[in-house]
Amino acid sequence: MNKDLEIERKFLVKGLPSGWKRHASSQIVQGYFPMATGEIEIRVRRRGSQHFITIKGGQGHKRLEEEIEISESRFRALWPLTRAARISKRRYKIPFDGHTIEMDIYQGTHRGLVTADIEFDSVPKSRAFEAPEWLGREITGRREYANAVLARRQGLPRKIKGS
Amino acid sequence: MNKDLEIERKFLVKGLPSGWKRHASSQIVQGYFPMATGEIEIRVRRRGSQHFITIKGGQGHKRLEEEIEISESRFRALWPLTRAARISKRRYKIPFDGHTIEMDIYQGTHRGLVTADIEFDSVPKSRAFEAPEWLGREITGRREYANAVLARRQGLPRKIKGS
Repeated sequence: MNKDLEIERKFLVKGLPSGWKRHASSQIVQGYFPMATGEIEIRVRRRGSQHFITIKGGQGHKRLEEEIEISESRFRALWPLTRAARISKRRYKIPFDGHTIEMDIYQGTHRGLVTADIEFDSVPKSRAFEAPEWLGREITGRREYANAVLARRQGLPRKIKGS
Repeated sequence: MNKDLEIERKFLVKGLPSGWKRHASSQIVQGYFPMATGEIEIRVRRRGSQHFITIKGGQGHKRLEEEIEISESRFRALWPLTRAARISKRRYKIPFDGHTIEMDIYQGTHRGLVTADIEFDSVPKSRAFEAPEWLGREITGRREYANAVLARRQGLPRKIKGS
């Protein structure tokens, strides 16, 4: 699977699936560097005990994503530069129909938001995907749910209920 | 020497020092990501056959600098995102009085500009440094000579002659 090109769909979670706590999970914190354009995102991330810098370019269905592992000391040095835009969430990996659904339960100021991401290795496969009943409204490509956008805002996007 | 914290002085070059072509040199190209603030710079760089992503924060005499080596394929993937701000130069490493002077001869739209950087491992040593006669006006901390700023502009800073 070509990690450089991300094909994914994203949904709001209507209700947590049964047994969700049993699935593997990791704590994620992300801080975003202040970019002049929304077309490029650069973030540092701690996921469990690993640390990364990630650069994303382009928008929508397909976008460039380069994730580079860095040491914890580098992460600690860079973290203060992201003061204005951070996010914290717990990610559960839930197997479904040959895919892995990444369910993110947001914390802190974004508490109440729960989303699900599914990555695909081709556009046809992404189109063929049939979501399980616990997923709600599709929010693929919706900028207000992009972590980089959420991170800059306090609180939740308007009207996440009724999904 | 702590590479995280950069203490350096920067000068314009009045005249190329005798024998400058004999010193080790490498070709450098740098592209900058569009940041919302001048206080943070993120760039990709090719130096000879090596590739890096570098993040700088803070300003002036001391600043955070994290340089992360990346593969050539990552560099090629990221390079298009820096379209609006690039620089190209040849760097010569010139030993002088126990220091290494990095002399940068700019190319392309910045042709005609030649600068020299010297890094120090302490502020007292940076103050004690006596520049050789071929160095001209000191431009330490001058934003208009920062590569990130030059990269966004066509041509040279005003009045680099008479240095």
